[in-house]
Amino acid sequence: MSNIQIPRGTQDILPGESEKWQWVEQIARELCTNYQYKEIRTPIFEHTELFQRGVGDSTDIVQKEMYTFKDRGDRSITLRPEGTASVARSFVENKMHGLPDQPVKLYYLGPMFRYERPQAGRFRQFVQFGVEALGSNDPAIDAEVISLAMNIYKKVGLKNIKLVINSLGDQDSRLAYREALVNHFKGSIHEFCSDCQNRLEQNPLRILDCKKDRDHDLMKTAPSILEYLNDSSKEYFQKVQTFLNGLGIPFEVDPNLVRGLDYYNHTAFEIMSNAEGFGAITTLCGGGRYNGLVEDLGGPETPGIGFAFSVERLLSAIEAEQLDIHFAKPLDCYLVGLGESAREKTLPLLQEMRMNGVAAETDYLDRKMKAQMKSANRLHARFVVILGDDEIEKGVALVKNMESGDQVEVSLSELVEHIRTA
Amino acid sequence: MSNIQIPRGTQDILPGESEKWQWVEQIARELCTNYQYKEIRTPIFEHTELFQRGVGDSTDIVQKEMYTFKDRGDRSITLRPEGTASVARSFVENKMHGLPDQPVKLYYLGPMFRYERPQAGRFRQFVQFGVEALGSNDPAIDAEVISLAMNIYKKVGLKNIKLVINSLGDQDSRLAYREALVNHFKGSIHEFCSDCQNRLEQNPLRILDCKKDRDHDLMKTAPSILEYLNDSSKEYFQKVQTFLNGLGIPFEVDPNLVRGLDYYNHTAFEIMSNAEGFGAITTLCGGGRYNGLVEDLGGPETPGIGFAFSVERLLSAIEAEQLDIHFAKPLDCYLVGLGESAREKTLPLLQEMRMNGVAAETDYLDRKMKAQMKSANRLHARFVVILGDDEIEKGVALVKNMESGDQVEVSLSELVEHIRTA
Repeated sequence: MSNIQIPRGTQDILPGESEKWQWVEQIARELCTNYQYKEIRTPIFEHTELFQRGVGDSTDIVQKEMYTFKDRGDRSITLRPEGTASVARSFVENKMHGLPDQPVKLYYLGPMFRYERPQAGRFRQFVQFGVEALGSNDPAIDAEVISLAMNIYKKVGLKNIKLVINSLGDQDSRLAYREALVNHFKGSIHEFCSDCQNRLEQNPLRILDCKKDRDHDLMKTAPSILEYLNDSSKEYFQKVQTFLNGLGIPFEVDPNLVRGLDYYNHTAFEIMSNAEGFGAITTLCGGGRYNGLVEDLGGPETPGIGFAFSVERLLSAIEAEQLDIHFAKPLDCYLVGLGESAREKTLPLLQEMRMNGVAAETDYLDRKMKAQMKSANRLHARFVVILGDDEIEKGVALVKNMESGDQVEVSLSELVEHIRTA
Repeated sequence: MSNIQIPRGTQDILPGESEKWQWVEQIARELCTNYQYKEIRTPIFEHTELFQRGVGDSTDIVQKEMYTFKDRGDRSITLRPEGTASVARSFVENKMHGLPDQPVKLYYLGPMFRYERPQAGRFRQFVQFGVEALGSNDPAIDAEVISLAMNIYKKVGLKNIKLVINSLGDQDSRLAYREALVNHFKGSIHEFCSDCQNRLEQNPLRILDCKKDRDHDLMKTAPSILEYLNDSSKEYFQKVQTFLNGLGIPFEVDPNLVRGLDYYNHTAFEIMSNAEGFGAITTLCGGGRYNGLVEDLGGPETPGIGFAFSVERLLSAIEAEQLDIHFAKPLDCYLVGLGESAREKTLPLLQEMRMNGVAAETDYLDRKMKAQMKSANRLHARFVVILGDDEIEKGVALVKNMESGDQVEVSLSELVEHIRTA
């Protein structure tokens, strides 16, 4: 009879917490609908090759953090570590480039999996909400995507939010910058960690992301991507900034913001919280443009931009800002049935209430009136309805308003309406 | 550049379909709230032992259908094949038996995984919605759970729904019945499939569930559980039926309904659809009482009852009944911006609409007016708003009501309100 425990690095989200998730997710869903992003649901697992190709063989995610296994048909499958590769796979497989309305604007919401060392606020299963706009090269869509992310946080009520943007330029700009970085680091690369030594060849931009070497002198003197943007990349970035200004969204440009994944180009952005409760600035959301990804996965040349954030992190930010939010719908009615004949009457009454939008509860432990009243109080019921044999005979119920303490007799046929409209 | 495809037996749920899922799930969530079942979210995977213990080592699910693998820490983990075992594990681990309000009423919604042969309507990843009430032995809670399942289908609009119930009785009744079944089958068990031969020892009730041997003569003459219920089990079953009658929920008693899982006792039920579109009667939902499960997982003795249904199956039933449901929120406004200066004005206007509950879209492909109007038509926009340089200078927009064809000039400051209230 040993206890079986939850897998390390995962969590149960219990009542009291789950209402927060529902609340946040509902806000994000509704805003996506107004922005005309539609939900896509891809499978929890994919062929491993998708992530090797779509996230990048050389990334930490693919090299160290994936849940990869063989299924009963001996195929290598992987629990998805992020959402963009799956959405791009689905875009190609379902030939969405042929849909009449472009760009294709999608959102997703669901669990992702990374085998990381468990620590405070880091889980091996976490929930990502993400958005992708595929098929437009208009800087206005970059601004739209960024504004959607910012406005979700705004709707939630967060105040200490900061947007940081950068441009990685087009292919040419990125190649020129890459060369400059290699030249900058190569003489002293032996002073860097082994990961950075590999990155010098594979993707030197990622050296700038390194957490181990972040204090090395060469980091501060590294060339800036902004010096290597060609004219069209500069113009693109300028337009994104003009649109953001027009939308009244404040931002900072940070040339060191490069994002870890292979496929980014042009616009990159992060949204951070500098709420005091966090202690340090915390990244909530990351996104950017990935014009080569769909092609890499076998589709036609298709521009794309998106973002993703973790719902766990968003909920932490709400906590860090100590927002006063009432997540749960209150209990409208606690129905106290006294005696067995009342019981046969309470169940249909309960059903009528519940089917008409009233949240209602009753006792299932055959307890005395006093214990039932205690439950009603603990559950913050707005009304207690008492139904005994006397009341049933008269065709009424005693209705007690728990806030005012008033008690009235209401006919059973008007009871539901009485509570609904109170 | 080979295409990477979706894993066999899984599906992408795309816009056009995903709205149906949202609609159904929202109905189920809201009704659960009114019934005071609260959401629990357990991890996608668990230690394999949980399902061996909680679903049963001898079941097809555990023997043949689980996605089981070793994680990077060499622990055997399994993608959850159903929801009840995880909920019971969480109940024990989080000591929910100590919560002041009993029974603990929970619901869950999420993907489950079974490695089955893919066929029409059967997926290796499917979504289950389920409910568990833990901690009450009151037959009224059995009726509540059943009524919740039935009422979800009712709210969705299904008409061809049939409830079948049975009782497996308590431990004593079940043992007596088990013995009767062994005596009934053992003389001719060699005429049954090898699975049934194993079942004779392990769990002879499951022979009654066998699809291969369903036409064997001994099946029809098998003893009925109802003859072996002791008095208290009979009384319990009688009360459940009385309550269902009081709730106005029609049902049939089928003594052959035994459900496959080890842990069921007392009430068992299934909800079926006999919609013509299905061709044959199709089970939509199954549930029952499982008083021993929490104890088997290391918790205190705790009665429990629940049900689960697949959302895929529910959506098939909607289709089979050809219900006329409008799942998606309509597009309120398509904003046509003409010229670059209009563009800088359209984005903030769009943002204002979207932040105030208006679903709004615009063009991101730099297309001519005619093509944009085509999009607006295709998307069934209720209004088209046209904004050119002239309008901007005058501080107005042209608003075209797409249903009536009427066109009016509206001041920009009143535009959002105009569309919101139209």
